[in-house]
Amino acid sequence: MNSNIVNRRVAALRQLMQAKQLDAFIFPSTDPHNGEYVPDHWKCREWISGFNGSAGIAVVTADRAALWTDSRYFIAAEEQLRGTDFVLMRERIESTPTIPQWLKTTLGQGRTFRVGIDGMVCAAATVADLASQLSTLGDFSVVTDIDPLAVLWTDRPPIPMHPLEIHPLEFAGEPATEKLARVRKAVRECHADTLLVTALDDIAWTLNLRGSDVHCNPVFVAYLLIGADESVLFVDPAKVTDEVADYLRNIGVSTAPYEAVADRLGNCTDGVILLDPASVNYTLYHAAACRVVDASSPIPTMKSVKNDTEVEGYRRAMQRDGVAMVKFLCWLEKAVERGGETECSIDRKLTELRSQQSHYRGLSFDTIAGYADHGAIVHYEATPATDIALRPEGLLLLDSGAQYTDGTTDITRTIALGPVSEWQKFVYTKVLKGHIRLQMLRFPEGACGSQLDAIARSPLWESGLNFLHGTGHGVGSYLNVHEGPHQIRQEWKPAPLKAWMTVTDEPGIYVEGQFGVRIENTLLIVPFMQTDFGSFLTFETLTLCPIDTRPLLLSLLSDDERKWLNDYHKTVRECLSPDLEGEELAWLEKATEEV
Amino acid sequence: MNSNIVNRRVAALRQLMQAKQLDAFIFPSTDPHNGEYVPDHWKCREWISGFNGSAGIAVVTADRAALWTDSRYFIAAEEQLRGTDFVLMRERIESTPTIPQWLKTTLGQGRTFRVGIDGMVCAAATVADLASQLSTLGDFSVVTDIDPLAVLWTDRPPIPMHPLEIHPLEFAGEPATEKLARVRKAVRECHADTLLVTALDDIAWTLNLRGSDVHCNPVFVAYLLIGADESVLFVDPAKVTDEVADYLRNIGVSTAPYEAVADRLGNCTDGVILLDPASVNYTLYHAAACRVVDASSPIPTMKSVKNDTEVEGYRRAMQRDGVAMVKFLCWLEKAVERGGETECSIDRKLTELRSQQSHYRGLSFDTIAGYADHGAIVHYEATPATDIALRPEGLLLLDSGAQYTDGTTDITRTIALGPVSEWQKFVYTKVLKGHIRLQMLRFPEGACGSQLDAIARSPLWESGLNFLHGTGHGVGSYLNVHEGPHQIRQEWKPAPLKAWMTVTDEPGIYVEGQFGVRIENTLLIVPFMQTDFGSFLTFETLTLCPIDTRPLLLSLLSDDERKWLNDYHKTVRECLSPDLEGEELAWLEKATEEV
Repeated sequence: MNSNIVNRRVAALRQLMQAKQLDAFIFPSTDPHNGEYVPDHWKCREWISGFNGSAGIAVVTADRAALWTDSRYFIAAEEQLRGTDFVLMRERIESTPTIPQWLKTTLGQGRTFRVGIDGMVCAAATVADLASQLSTLGDFSVVTDIDPLAVLWTDRPPIPMHPLEIHPLEFAGEPATEKLARVRKAVRECHADTLLVTALDDIAWTLNLRGSDVHCNPVFVAYLLIGADESVLFVDPAKVTDEVADYLRNIGVSTAPYEAVADRLGNCTDGVILLDPASVNYTLYHAAACRVVDASSPIPTMKSVKNDTEVEGYRRAMQRDGVAMVKFLCWLEKAVERGGETECSIDRKLTELRSQQSHYRGLSFDTIAGYADHGAIVHYEATPATDIALRPEGLLLLDSGAQYTDGTTDITRTIALGPVSEWQKFVYTKVLKGHIRLQMLRFPEGACGSQLDAIARSPLWESGLNFLHGTGHGVGSYLNVHEGPHQIRQEWKPAPLKAWMTVTDEPGIYVEGQFGVRIENTLLIVPFMQTDFGSFLTFETLTLCPIDTRPLLLSLLSDDERKWLNDYHKTVRECLSPDLEGEELAWLEKATEEV
Repeated sequence: MNSNIVNRRVAALRQLMQAKQLDAFIFPSTDPHNGEYVPDHWKCREWISGFNGSAGIAVVTADRAALWTDSRYFIAAEEQLRGTDFVLMRERIESTPTIPQWLKTTLGQGRTFRVGIDGMVCAAATVADLASQLSTLGDFSVVTDIDPLAVLWTDRPPIPMHPLEIHPLEFAGEPATEKLARVRKAVRECHADTLLVTALDDIAWTLNLRGSDVHCNPVFVAYLLIGADESVLFVDPAKVTDEVADYLRNIGVSTAPYEAVADRLGNCTDGVILLDPASVNYTLYHAAACRVVDASSPIPTMKSVKNDTEVEGYRRAMQRDGVAMVKFLCWLEKAVERGGETECSIDRKLTELRSQQSHYRGLSFDTIAGYADHGAIVHYEATPATDIALRPEGLLLLDSGAQYTDGTTDITRTIALGPVSEWQKFVYTKVLKGHIRLQMLRFPEGACGSQLDAIARSPLWESGLNFLHGTGHGVGSYLNVHEGPHQIRQEWKPAPLKAWMTVTDEPGIYVEGQFGVRIENTLLIVPFMQTDFGSFLTFETLTLCPIDTRPLLLSLLSDDERKWLNDYHKTVRECLSPDLEGEELAWLEKATEEV
């Protein structure tokens, strides 16, 4: 974006701030639903700053402006902010002030300063934390009832407007009426009678509905108010087809306009409403006129534990995804030899092969195809500007997945396109060891992912290697590829791992300027055994696709690890062979040979 | 205790409660310093209820009484409460109400109920949490400015009154003036100028003083107020010898009576005081008249990172402790054959052997000597009533340690007194595997113990085994055997592990009614390597004592684990041999033979 455009926008904002007596305005990256992917309508931080990364916070005062983002985006942000008023604030660098500290330094002292932030696009707990930090530093008041871009952003994209679809019971496995009954029971157990649901995947799961309002996430923009007797879906009526309208009536859910939710909350004067301050935005959190119980919503945990139908759906979806992956990998081997392929071109080929599978509905996230040193950029997405040709040497990191009506997939393979160095083999084998150790783990019911994370890392740590992203996340059932409440990561995520949850296993190592390795399967948590010491769980591997054995240093694998790999490859061969033939079948047989 | 005595005490309390218009009174287990061991003066819960376990909370209303404790004490509490008004409330059993829930049910509703708790013997955060829970349930007010036992407990033991001792620089390694300067700098970095220190081991560490007011902990009862320029030690003047008085003057610390601390805080109207609400008691927390910064005290982290002198002290203390342990184990072998020894008699023998070592100052905790099924009782302490004879068969669990002027020790060995079953061998070997895996771990700087805990457990989990206590804790330097802020455990303890901290490694398995296994060494965290991926740490073993190889199933050990064990035994042999001779030296050589 032209820096002049940004400067004009900032100037217009400052005029409006002056009129509203605001000393600063903060633009976070989030939207009213606290989602991971934000529809264009809510990309306010990008509009005001020109910075288009997925994470960043812009702050503007009368004479200064700054943008905070993390190390993934330092280089991109620096380029995009050049020529604008915005100074780049590098997060997690010691000399970087926090936003409250910067505001204190920038604004000075001597009077009350008014700091604006749109309460609709920021979680209640986040705004409360900001206000609390500011109050310890000086005399600030936080103003939340204003979205300045409602006036300034004249060509603002509308809120997405795609029709709702019914997610059939043959894939959902549990009628929406039963889900609503379970949710109501859980809400009563929290001494409340009403629940406001703002997370779009929670709404889609509860009602067995899907949409296409958000990139790669089959959800629709709405709010859901679940009361003791009736529920209301706040959604643009134009999205509700006659079939969906009938369906909603049948399951006892009425509809109201999307914008009506705040007024409705204001009219709720009786009873007790459960609101999760970490998820519900500040404005709606404070719109409720009745008594509020602060608690986590029960829906994420319910949604994360898959029913038999969903588990069977995953198995079928993984089978088809594995067939597409094998066809792709077989093709890739020859294509790289022939030459002329690039990161972008192989992404198109893989997407084409997936789209030929039945029940295919789209990608579950943008493919990460990082060749050679691009593999070391954790969130790399090849663009025409960065695209490079694949040569018959070195490593290709390929993280991809699809949405099928019966399941969502997420798989990473690192592929030797030709000769690789001993150092590359060493790192590859260490990452595979970490991956296998986690898959082989047995653990007690109630353990959380933060407790298990080190199991995947310890083979890396012993060689002075480490990675900074999470080791695993839940995966939705024809829903978001990143799904809570559980995660496997270094930071504390107390949500316990339960039987029939899905979770990925994806350790990696990124050698800057050289190459990257990540190996990822999606797993299902299943019962292992019951003893006098409690119930124990283990993992079943859902993903079906060979792991490249060519870059392996076999001497580094223990007997157990080698056995796991051979057993896995036997399963992959047996499952996928019936759907393959000719050179693709031959390729699979070779790729799954015992090591 | 006679139940009539308890009933008379409760009756007297109820009279006093009526006079003070209190509807309930709560007696926690803690004291004004939030310590682990409570001097007799503050054993109020035991006085009112007759229950003498280390953990429990008694609650009395006008016509009911109840005592909450955990599963360790269910049997003992039931016996001790028999015939009294107190109903046993079993913690962590689903049907057990919380104290606020019980108060609501017991007191009913219709007016404001006044609930008393002595704010001096409960952390500020704990009282705040209680008040917050009560407020969501009904109309309660919490009264904290009363200690009813000040009147009722006529023969109450005085606050302990032992003289302070200077801990010489040759053992402390850093002058108190330098410690005070470091603390002041850290307090300033929290935007405060004064720190109230209430934890007795923090006071002892900061001032390089020791005492003997508390069982097994070489500390003295006092408060310490560290100001920007001067510091005040609130301590009974009778404890301060002339030598200590001179010393305190020289390091710029004045003294004031122990009871004067609250008034002094009330007179602090200027400046900013740092108070840790999780550690400072409620009354003192609210006595401060100036602005308060809520934050963790910097002292526990400083204290936990040992300086070179302390590290050398540990090495010497461990050497002597190992010699005492080897003499004991050599003696035990013959003594058990001869017969006539019991859990209590071997405890006396071990203590005698330790007391013959130089710099011995006492035990660091009460010895746990659990033979056969007693080994399965995690916090077992043999008494004349429970004591049993040792026979030449089965397993003895022996957890013990001592205070030496140059270091504190903590070691557990499980010893085969004769033939053991295959099942015992299996469990023993699995526990040893967990123990070794943690010792062999390398991990990144900044990792916390909760992340590493699973490393010791995974060999147990894979066989459906688990234990519920922590895997490791810090150990003081001639200070408390349990020392924070770091721990290795399943619950979240975010304090990072740092180089030169001590930590124990003590997995165990407890087969109820049969036997228990625990194997514990005290470790030192040391630098491992620095790479492009950060700094990595590992462990050096401080404890020097053979691990019994007779109950081993060698086939279950990996090559790495067997090598670790042989290397460790080689080190133990080389370190201890020079201090042993005759049959004790021969015993050591046999016990450390390669497996």
